[in-house]
Amino acid sequence: MTSDELYPADRLEKVREAADAAGLDAVLLTPGPDLRYVIGYDAKQLERLTCLAVPAGSDPVLFVPRLELAAAQASPAGALALEMVPWDETDDPFALVAGRLGAVSRVGVSDRMWALSVLKFRDALPGARLALAGGALRTLRIRKSPAEVAALREAGAAIDRVHAQVAGWLRPGLTERAVGSVITESILAEGHATVDFVIVGSGPNAASPHHEVSDRVMAAGDVVVVDIGGTMPSGYCSDSTRTYALGEPPAEFTAYYKVLYDAQEAACAAVRPGVTAESVDAAAREPITRAGFGAAFIHRTGHGIGLEAHEDPYIVAGNREPLEPGMAFSVEPGIYPGPHGARIEDIVVCTQDGAERLNHTPRELVIAG
Amino acid sequence: MTSDELYPADRLEKVREAADAAGLDAVLLTPGPDLRYVIGYDAKQLERLTCLAVPAGSDPVLFVPRLELAAAQASPAGALALEMVPWDETDDPFALVAGRLGAVSRVGVSDRMWALSVLKFRDALPGARLALAGGALRTLRIRKSPAEVAALREAGAAIDRVHAQVAGWLRPGLTERAVGSVITESILAEGHATVDFVIVGSGPNAASPHHEVSDRVMAAGDVVVVDIGGTMPSGYCSDSTRTYALGEPPAEFTAYYKVLYDAQEAACAAVRPGVTAESVDAAAREPITRAGFGAAFIHRTGHGIGLEAHEDPYIVAGNREPLEPGMAFSVEPGIYPGPHGARIEDIVVCTQDGAERLNHTPRELVIAG
Repeated sequence: MTSDELYPADRLEKVREAADAAGLDAVLLTPGPDLRYVIGYDAKQLERLTCLAVPAGSDPVLFVPRLELAAAQASPAGALALEMVPWDETDDPFALVAGRLGAVSRVGVSDRMWALSVLKFRDALPGARLALAGGALRTLRIRKSPAEVAALREAGAAIDRVHAQVAGWLRPGLTERAVGSVITESILAEGHATVDFVIVGSGPNAASPHHEVSDRVMAAGDVVVVDIGGTMPSGYCSDSTRTYALGEPPAEFTAYYKVLYDAQEAACAAVRPGVTAESVDAAAREPITRAGFGAAFIHRTGHGIGLEAHEDPYIVAGNREPLEPGMAFSVEPGIYPGPHGARIEDIVVCTQDGAERLNHTPRELVIAG
Repeated sequence: MTSDELYPADRLEKVREAADAAGLDAVLLTPGPDLRYVIGYDAKQLERLTCLAVPAGSDPVLFVPRLELAAAQASPAGALALEMVPWDETDDPFALVAGRLGAVSRVGVSDRMWALSVLKFRDALPGARLALAGGALRTLRIRKSPAEVAALREAGAAIDRVHAQVAGWLRPGLTERAVGSVITESILAEGHATVDFVIVGSGPNAASPHHEVSDRVMAAGDVVVVDIGGTMPSGYCSDSTRTYALGEPPAEFTAYYKVLYDAQEAACAAVRPGVTAESVDAAAREPITRAGFGAAFIHRTGHGIGLEAHEDPYIVAGNREPLEPGMAFSVEPGIYPGPHGARIEDIVVCTQDGAERLNHTPRELVIAG
């Protein structure tokens, strides 16, 4: 993908339209996934304010610390018809932004803007009510373009190349942390720009879905949940979980793993345009509940993914949003009865024909070690 | 360091006292450096709310998503006398927190709390005015304990081990990105848990202080600014810059590099208890200005460092805060006249006897390649 394809020039105009439709007089975006989505500028959120202002009635402006100006111009944003206003170390950038906005009564701020900036904007814009810009931006970001799907496909292939090696790294006698280090290096070696998370949950830790790594020494008979992901140079994220066993697992585990496998299949099969997000959650939950493990499936079935590892749409009870082509999300049911647990996770994209899976390593239990 | 030393049990009480002194009825901390500082819990900021509430008049409470409860209990926070309240996927955690706080009129939120949570707390606490908790917390965090200084010293030694190898990796014909990848792997291999930034600015990119890496192919005669840092498993950060030359650099460069070297020495020599932060900036700026390069030193002299790569105190004109023993910050003057530039950066800690440098690789220009 070229950056033209990933970051088309019409997004600034689309953001303005979406903000207008949401009743916002302006949108303020600090570094993070929203800013990168709109202008392709992958800036870090720092104590010095970088802020894209998209007013309803005038041209957008990117305010940047002077020493970031060259980096901003060198990013895809430099190719847009976008005014950049550098500010100096002794300027008050919040006053600069407020001065440019003029009289506004409702201003959207990016969901991940730090309180440090939120409260300074509140004070610099005393006549305005701040709201989350995410509601307006989600209408754009939730449906991935073909270039975005291609970027997610690349991310999926990269994390698959890591999982393809994990069974060879898991051995009784090693700590979770040691294996986690090898996985971390591999996530980078296989093409990610950053490592977002590395979960190696062995033995009882497999029953704690958000356990990361520990100094626990793995033993024969352990079940190990490995949930890993990173961000590619494109900005798009990977996320895939496989469950491994060090030798023969306990018989009761093998029984519920089969239930989990079928549940993950059923949820993927339920994905198609027009069905609700919660119905995919229900499709995963139903066979697990029927087998008596409903209380051990203690989280939602999935989360959207794109420039953020977790974003809309959430695949959870209560989310009646209908799926549309281009929506990308995880399908990751889990069963955690203790003293072990299991999870299977793929990223899928909703297409006219149903779910396209972006992860392809075997989902059957892998015997390692 | 044990976690007891890094995260002593009296911090919750100290936060309450600092909040009270700042006129706050309660402090709300979401995952990030403030939360980690107070209770040692290194949680990720996610769309699901994790929040430590420290009310002025009652006991502190950690609200966590139920599926994070085990991880929270396994962290150093689990050893504290701290109530943990798990919430379920269909609960409204903001209402839970507000209900526990009761009537409050001024509530501090962590500086890095996402707008997503800030605005939900604003709505859940309609009688309260939100303020930044950073002002109260900075009085604690700005003076590092001996255990924190030890953690920063370890971080400094780790990044020094990377810089000691960089000259061997820089060669004409390689891209900045290729060398950046090797450095990234080395930052992890030398003991960091995460890589925070890798700047390899060669040729004209050396004149852009916050350039990261690009596909520029390095050539003989290039000057290369390498500014790198990461976060250790302890949570404490490293940050060090050295400037390298691929063969003999231009004569005018060699001349101003000497000025820069002397300026960095002078700024470090100026550090002692009682002098202001801005006087250290002035000590760096004076020799550079005298040599005619004042306009080419386009950023402040330094930033504090600890659990954040950038935190208080900032070494910048206008900051009249007196230095105290335990304050840790970068001393990193730069000269960027183009078409090349240079920067030298060490982390230093203010002690009774002046600056203790935490970086020790040679500051003289290193001829590489």
